[in-house]
Amino acid sequence: MNSALGIDIGGTKISYAIIDNNGQIKNDVNKIPTPKTKDEIYNTLKSIISKFEDNIDFVAIATAGAVNNENTGVIGSTANLPQGYKDIDFSTLSKKIVFIENDANAAAWAEYKIGASKDMKNSVMLTLGTGVGGGIIVNGKLLKGKSGAAGEMHFIMSRNKTRCCTCGSYDCFEAYASGNGLKKTAEIITNDPDITTYDVIKQAENNDENSKKALKIWQDDITLGIIGLANIFDPDCFVLSGSMEKFVDVEEIEKKVNSLIVTTPIKVLHAKAGNYSGMIGAVLLANELI
Amino acid sequence: MNSALGIDIGGTKISYAIIDNNGQIKNDVNKIPTPKTKDEIYNTLKSIISKFEDNIDFVAIATAGAVNNENTGVIGSTANLPQGYKDIDFSTLSKKIVFIENDANAAAWAEYKIGASKDMKNSVMLTLGTGVGGGIIVNGKLLKGKSGAAGEMHFIMSRNKTRCCTCGSYDCFEAYASGNGLKKTAEIITNDPDITTYDVIKQAENNDENSKKALKIWQDDITLGIIGLANIFDPDCFVLSGSMEKFVDVEEIEKKVNSLIVTTPIKVLHAKAGNYSGMIGAVLLANELI
Repeated sequence: MNSALGIDIGGTKISYAIIDNNGQIKNDVNKIPTPKTKDEIYNTLKSIISKFEDNIDFVAIATAGAVNNENTGVIGSTANLPQGYKDIDFSTLSKKIVFIENDANAAAWAEYKIGASKDMKNSVMLTLGTGVGGGIIVNGKLLKGKSGAAGEMHFIMSRNKTRCCTCGSYDCFEAYASGNGLKKTAEIITNDPDITTYDVIKQAENNDENSKKALKIWQDDITLGIIGLANIFDPDCFVLSGSMEKFVDVEEIEKKVNSLIVTTPIKVLHAKAGNYSGMIGAVLLANELI
Repeated sequence: MNSALGIDIGGTKISYAIIDNNGQIKNDVNKIPTPKTKDEIYNTLKSIISKFEDNIDFVAIATAGAVNNENTGVIGSTANLPQGYKDIDFSTLSKKIVFIENDANAAAWAEYKIGASKDMKNSVMLTLGTGVGGGIIVNGKLLKGKSGAAGEMHFIMSRNKTRCCTCGSYDCFEAYASGNGLKKTAEIITNDPDITTYDVIKQAENNDENSKKALKIWQDDITLGIIGLANIFDPDCFVLSGSMEKFVDVEEIEKKVNSLIVTTPIKVLHAKAGNYSGMIGAVLLANELI
């Protein structure tokens, strides 16, 4: 058959499509809203899979939350999905193998296999959205750590406890480099607690000085985080993805990073594997690991 | 023969000893001051090696500076060694194979093979001395990156450009977590630009409030750095080594880190492979790679 069912489970929607061995989507991508309870999610997934399972080799799921090293279950609860989600027994969803990987990790793998970081054995992908996701590839292998949860972008940008982070701590990279981070930076500059990320982007397009300043500080913060990661990993490249990445100037970041790191020069690239890189990467990774 | 000549090249001294396959030093460790020029270093190494090379399997060198992925040469100049050091052709030093690795990486390997992180496949070693060194092991392999320079602990602790770092940038982890970082923290507290790291340690032992405060802030800064690295790597443990590590409370750090990370709990351990872990680790790593 040489094809798999790829599924992407996010906080707001579940997407799925048939994907071949080369990471090509074979039909349209289907999307449904993510159900509100663990049991409804389970039943929905079971129903989707039952329609396809006779005609596929395996099921590959990219999901929010940390996934174990066996690629069989979710280990970390994620605020975007219902309570108990991590207790789902994914293996019972199909008579075929059900392979799971964290969505950011899976997307990083898609970039490595068919996207921006193709053939580069050491890379760091940063997904700049409402939050910040991370997927790291070291010497051609996904960095998973002891439990599978590696690649979380919660390292500090300040010792002053000035900005709360979603993780419960303060001043993490995510709290500055995310869309929410841009909003918070703009709040400080404009003194307007109601300004949204969208407002900042729109107003900057209309040449508003405060919004342009907020965007510049936001990009500088992303740059500072990349400098640290470059010194730690000495990667070939950084791949930027997510809804916010189109607002950064990758060439400017690359130039500044390379002027300040202690290691050899790195590249900063826009992601290329597309909006469905999560499910594509999950299929491509499963191809190698199962 | 099953033994090798291990050499440690540091900024102030060169140490060497015969080391067996199990990482045991077979005789006394010899030490000489590091010569002041590249050529003198070369000739000194050649002379040392010539005395032993008929009775060993290979030469393994742990050196300051980044080492390439082939373990044949130094790629990054290091401020502690003479200009041109990185141009030394180590392969010509002996008729036996000459294997080289960065000293912090080699020490991390020794801890993994015979020391504090034995049998733990994911670990981060931090060497707290005048500066801060790093050696990272991912899934049982040394993290080297694209050029071999990975593991540099230059990630920021502040966005305010308040403290210069040896790397030419500002506010790196090294500038806070090192012995020099402790001195700088104490300078701010005491308003005494001449206070030394030694003064802080001594005065804290005599219950001086300012010195105790400086040590506490220093340890908190080390803790903040470890939190970020734990979220990025999800390692089994952190191993602390170097001349300054005896002044930190590893249990206190471990407790605080585990209360704030988004991944599963980590251990914080004192290094156990001893003062010669660099040359021992170089021999043990060469055993596997050559």
